[in-house]
Amino acid sequence: MNFGIIIKVLGTLLLFESIVLIGPLGISLYYGESPYPFFYTIALLMLVGGAMRVFGGKSKKMQAREALSIVTFGWILVSFFGALPFIFSGVIPNFVDAFFETVSGLTTTGATILEEIEGLPKGILFWRSLTHWLGGMGILVLTLAVLPALGVGAFRIFKAESPGPMSDKLVPKVKDTAKILYTAYLGMTVLQIILLYLGEMNLYESLVHTFGTVGTGGFSIKDDSIGAYQSSYTIWVITFFMIAAGVNFALYYDLWKGKWKNLFKNTELRLYLSIIVFAGALITLNLLLTTYYTGFFETLKQAFFQTAAITTTTGYGTADFDQWPAFSKAIVFVLMFVGGSAGSTGGGIKVARLLILGVVIRREVQRLLHPQAYLPVTLNGKAVSNSIVQGVTSFFFLYMLIVAFGTVLISLEGVGIVTAVSSVAATVGNIGPGFEMVGPTQNYSQFSAPSKMLFSLFMLFGRLELFTVFLFFIPSFWKGK
Amino acid sequence: MNFGIIIKVLGTLLLFESIVLIGPLGISLYYGESPYPFFYTIALLMLVGGAMRVFGGKSKKMQAREALSIVTFGWILVSFFGALPFIFSGVIPNFVDAFFETVSGLTTTGATILEEIEGLPKGILFWRSLTHWLGGMGILVLTLAVLPALGVGAFRIFKAESPGPMSDKLVPKVKDTAKILYTAYLGMTVLQIILLYLGEMNLYESLVHTFGTVGTGGFSIKDDSIGAYQSSYTIWVITFFMIAAGVNFALYYDLWKGKWKNLFKNTELRLYLSIIVFAGALITLNLLLTTYYTGFFETLKQAFFQTAAITTTTGYGTADFDQWPAFSKAIVFVLMFVGGSAGSTGGGIKVARLLILGVVIRREVQRLLHPQAYLPVTLNGKAVSNSIVQGVTSFFFLYMLIVAFGTVLISLEGVGIVTAVSSVAATVGNIGPGFEMVGPTQNYSQFSAPSKMLFSLFMLFGRLELFTVFLFFIPSFWKGK
Repeated sequence: MNFGIIIKVLGTLLLFESIVLIGPLGISLYYGESPYPFFYTIALLMLVGGAMRVFGGKSKKMQAREALSIVTFGWILVSFFGALPFIFSGVIPNFVDAFFETVSGLTTTGATILEEIEGLPKGILFWRSLTHWLGGMGILVLTLAVLPALGVGAFRIFKAESPGPMSDKLVPKVKDTAKILYTAYLGMTVLQIILLYLGEMNLYESLVHTFGTVGTGGFSIKDDSIGAYQSSYTIWVITFFMIAAGVNFALYYDLWKGKWKNLFKNTELRLYLSIIVFAGALITLNLLLTTYYTGFFETLKQAFFQTAAITTTTGYGTADFDQWPAFSKAIVFVLMFVGGSAGSTGGGIKVARLLILGVVIRREVQRLLHPQAYLPVTLNGKAVSNSIVQGVTSFFFLYMLIVAFGTVLISLEGVGIVTAVSSVAATVGNIGPGFEMVGPTQNYSQFSAPSKMLFSLFMLFGRLELFTVFLFFIPSFWKGK
Repeated sequence: MNFGIIIKVLGTLLLFESIVLIGPLGISLYYGESPYPFFYTIALLMLVGGAMRVFGGKSKKMQAREALSIVTFGWILVSFFGALPFIFSGVIPNFVDAFFETVSGLTTTGATILEEIEGLPKGILFWRSLTHWLGGMGILVLTLAVLPALGVGAFRIFKAESPGPMSDKLVPKVKDTAKILYTAYLGMTVLQIILLYLGEMNLYESLVHTFGTVGTGGFSIKDDSIGAYQSSYTIWVITFFMIAAGVNFALYYDLWKGKWKNLFKNTELRLYLSIIVFAGALITLNLLLTTYYTGFFETLKQAFFQTAAITTTTGYGTADFDQWPAFSKAIVFVLMFVGGSAGSTGGGIKVARLLILGVVIRREVQRLLHPQAYLPVTLNGKAVSNSIVQGVTSFFFLYMLIVAFGTVLISLEGVGIVTAVSSVAATVGNIGPGFEMVGPTQNYSQFSAPSKMLFSLFMLFGRLELFTVFLFFIPSFWKGK
């Protein structure tokens, strides 16, 4: 293991974090709040990050092992230092809680341990929401640069120019693609800020809620989340951008280039949108028949907001779906295991994987009828390589395994099965809210410190696509040269 | 499609059922109950079965399509006629209920719609329990004869002499192996009857409870299931035989031949027993610490009986695990997704499949560290073929898909998530009891007729290893020549 390069890259990452923290520092100065929590954190980050850069090794040799270490330790380190403003400001005095909140932000989960949010310093809440936006950006570069090269990401399935194994010649290509994705991400951010600002939100509110939307995070600055806003306009704008943030960002490039056809032909996009429309329509119907809300448009709005919030793993709320009729609740529960598209900021299992698993089943059925035939797995008319199919199927089983073991571990808190299953699904899927004790009007404060650390681990598991973190528990990862 | 041969084989199956019904007919005569429900059913079976044999085609050409049709329609037809004694006797006047009960029996699920069992005619209850024993026998021949030939069963993974594609020359080999398995099944049955009879049960009770155990069914003739019996001896005997019935029956042949080593080397057996011991120990510990039962041995007995009952998918009960502390409940919930061994009478996902999925994950991890290496999936030191890995992974996803869609459909009854998820898992896994409304002290009577038909479908799905039934929903199954 080339520890030198790992330390050096991580040092750069911390210096980058120190620069980013100037944003919330400015906000706290603007609102006349104490800037010291940010000052101290920035100073510490520059010190540690600078030292790591200076004392880190010179060898640039980087392989799978090093890349994976940088990704996992990077997320943990950035979360660790990102938790400091919460601690220094006294908003979250407990380290475990502050770490949970920061991991939740950076992994774009949006699960919170805060019981009351309104009234907290604006600079701190700005930083809290900004972690979503940074996390979303981090995911895009991760999906592009590291994971596909290692064969984990489902992203490259949809890219013709699959990058192949990790090597130096890969970098320029990744940089180009990253530029495109960042442009789409920035463009989407600016557009949503403007559209929200045109409604009932002020600039500050527009900023933080845009961060939470485009990163598919879910942190709000209101105790009632988006439910605190009255106008249908605001709610539909957020619904639209939640759905948009769950789409493969590479498709926005095609859109920009006028390649409309690619969008219509994209099987994942069609399934992703179908799931939202179909689930939203069923919930609307169920809520209408039980006259849960007054009026068709109110029902439609509530049904589609919650459907989009859960499917895209954003987790914003305008209604307590835990109080909905059984049928609607069951649909939301199942949606917790769907997730956004590959190459989006959304978490979860992801539609691309479900699609490939569906194709695998179809092939299995064909194989029963024609035992001798050679039947490749195809998607969008192209054959999907065996290694991708294996990656997807093992991902799905590992995901379910984590939910199963997580459920047993969390039940040690004495909580019911629904709380246990949905809290694990909500964290490993980077969603945020679940049912019962972690329902939309609840939070994660009532869990013990060990459970909160476990949830933090699950959030990282989900965000880094399981295997990246999972490797660290494998002895041979540490042994090999 | 060669309908001639399908009709002919199904006719033979019905004639076989008419002979089997002489057993419960004798019991009802012995106890002085009305024999007419069985008389009428036997007469009808002989008439229909005989006609089908006479008018069925002569061509013996049978391929995958025909074999699958025989299996699926066979189970449905036998269930249909098997439901008649319940209807004719007036014990279950409603057809949907009687069909549910018979499917539950034949698939060795053990879910019941009867609210009170004690006091019902002994002949009828004998037939009800006998369906478990017949179902268990049917599964053994199915696992051997039909499924492996089609590449669905996980059974052949553990057999060196994999039978290969369906053909006539296969039949003698299957017959030989079937003889061995039936001998083990019969031997186990006789042994358990004797051991139970030596305890507090009379011969009738020993018979019906043995049928429920060796078939991993779970129907009892007591309202309190096995909890109606007081002696620890009886409970431990049933615990032992439940676990024994969940073991791959081929291993008993090795045991008989003195090949002890094969048992120790068998990875599935080791994992299967480890799961039961580990889960049972954790539940014992949890129940001891919460002093749920009085005394260590009482706790041990209750913990291991319930663990064995759920893991082997038998579903007998001596305690209401739905009242247990959260941790124990969560373990039971997760065990609902395990199941017995391949080649046993147990249902569920099955340990062999979980094992292969685990090996697939291990390979994926190795592939991350050594992207260029060729890494086959190995089990017991032998390479597992790609087609088996694909079969297993698609089985797992289809299983979860059925649980997901089933949960949404059952929630239309207005039941909670735990009831919906566990009732679907309990039926597709051929277990019987679940949690809340389908908990150990509850039954399936409160569901509507459409839900009961859906549950019957799930039980058949689970028993016929999903794909066999699933095929019938695929248009191309009906179209092809």
